[in-house]
Amino acid sequence: MSNSIYNDTMKQHLDIIETSLQNYIPERNLTLQDELFNSMEYACAAGGKRLRPVLLMEFCRVCGGDTRKALPFACAVEIIHSYSLVHDDLPCMDNSPLRRGRPSAHIAFGEAMALLAGDALLNRAFEIMLDPANRQGLSTESAIEAAFILANAAGARGMVGGQVIDLKSECQAIDLDTLENLQKGKTAALISAACQMGCCIAGADEKKMDTAREFGLQLGLCFQIVDDILDNTSTSEQLGKPSGSDTENHKATYVSVLGLKEAKSFAIRRTEHAVLALEVFGNQAEGLRDLTYKLFKRNR
Amino acid sequence: MSNSIYNDTMKQHLDIIETSLQNYIPERNLTLQDELFNSMEYACAAGGKRLRPVLLMEFCRVCGGDTRKALPFACAVEIIHSYSLVHDDLPCMDNSPLRRGRPSAHIAFGEAMALLAGDALLNRAFEIMLDPANRQGLSTESAIEAAFILANAAGARGMVGGQVIDLKSECQAIDLDTLENLQKGKTAALISAACQMGCCIAGADEKKMDTAREFGLQLGLCFQIVDDILDNTSTSEQLGKPSGSDTENHKATYVSVLGLKEAKSFAIRRTEHAVLALEVFGNQAEGLRDLTYKLFKRNR
Repeated sequence: MSNSIYNDTMKQHLDIIETSLQNYIPERNLTLQDELFNSMEYACAAGGKRLRPVLLMEFCRVCGGDTRKALPFACAVEIIHSYSLVHDDLPCMDNSPLRRGRPSAHIAFGEAMALLAGDALLNRAFEIMLDPANRQGLSTESAIEAAFILANAAGARGMVGGQVIDLKSECQAIDLDTLENLQKGKTAALISAACQMGCCIAGADEKKMDTAREFGLQLGLCFQIVDDILDNTSTSEQLGKPSGSDTENHKATYVSVLGLKEAKSFAIRRTEHAVLALEVFGNQAEGLRDLTYKLFKRNR
Repeated sequence: MSNSIYNDTMKQHLDIIETSLQNYIPERNLTLQDELFNSMEYACAAGGKRLRPVLLMEFCRVCGGDTRKALPFACAVEIIHSYSLVHDDLPCMDNSPLRRGRPSAHIAFGEAMALLAGDALLNRAFEIMLDPANRQGLSTESAIEAAFILANAAGARGMVGGQVIDLKSECQAIDLDTLENLQKGKTAALISAACQMGCCIAGADEKKMDTAREFGLQLGLCFQIVDDILDNTSTSEQLGKPSGSDTENHKATYVSVLGLKEAKSFAIRRTEHAVLALEVFGNQAEGLRDLTYKLFKRNR
């Protein structure tokens, strides 16, 4: 199901990403370290749509770039996404025993090992992008710029900043502006960075890079709104409550802040903005347009 | 006391580092994020010798480089060291309520915030090194090489790898080889990387970079042996036990593995190796030679 959102070209990206991801986890070399590398691999093998790396590869292709040069950067983005899920699941955070139907990393390997595996994955993402062996044929300027885009998106002013608003919003009601800042950081920043990095590696101009960033932002926010709507609908169905009631949910969502109807129209507007942004990329962006609609209409 | 190990030149490095470190924590810009930036600042303000950044600046100077270009990289190394202490102190790791006489970050800000502040600091270190604004006048090649040296040293095959051996060695006795691997990763990797990065930013040749790495490795291991000896002596004094007994200590140390006498002669040999390595750098390395002896003779 999860990869039926992709066309044939994107499925090829996905295949290459799945094969490469595990190769980018370094080989164990010392005694007593096996669990570290096992837990790093476990965290990255957890699957999902691989949306961020597929977008990175596709934007590189759309801009006329060589997707082989984009691959290490695509894997780096997915590895950062994976580390964030490991740390998000920890007892002091969401305390989630399950991730995508399997035991979370801290259940499988213990809390300390999950913490360290997350740290190692975040670090590993930068190692991969900076390693001369992984950027052959790519200009040093493009490599350092792409790595900087990701660093900006993953940190205090991006993903981690969003996680912090998420954490603090458990204790208090938040308004739409705060919710938007939360999701721009927690979900959209990395998606947006992936789109921009793909253009950067292809050597695209500033206008395309800015447009890709804006597309990613809209797509990321739309992705989250649809997630919130699906969560709300499934919870309501399970509990036999009317759709739209969410009193059992402590975390702020688009549905809890806007109501179900307004959340849906918000998602439609985000989708339209995202599709509009793609015009800069011409016919080559046909697949990205389809993907945007499919992500909006998806049922998980 | 802690900065009396430095000569006047190194004290100047230290002053500049102390001033700059806080400036490299980004400004808070959104609501509900104050605690993140406060905890990041708190973790970096915790003091200590600032050994890693001082070494980085000094190796840059010794190789004839401009220490202003080295400053962002020096702060990045110290920020990574700071994040590692925040994560090390967490309940699932060492569960330390105190760090350098102050409440640990998770005591001051809560466990989730400390986790996220650590993540943000690790990420921030790379942001600083990759930011074009922080590498003016430095070649892109030198910047990316220095950042790669740090990424290598901080991750699964460096510092985090050492933390993992440390964690696993709590449950079992380890031999000298394993202890050396532990400390090469946990303590020496970052010190060694700092020395090498300083040379790299100064544009030094491969021989000097390799020698600086080897010096840092020996110094880092010596530093840890002396720490273990001081811990053992102070614990023995406090408990009124003969020096050298360490039955109350669960973690492997150089004293527990080698015995006190052999640990001391190990430290002497490491110091001699480190000082010998400095010959490549000629008279300019006089301050580094003194520092090496002072670190060996220090009482904390």
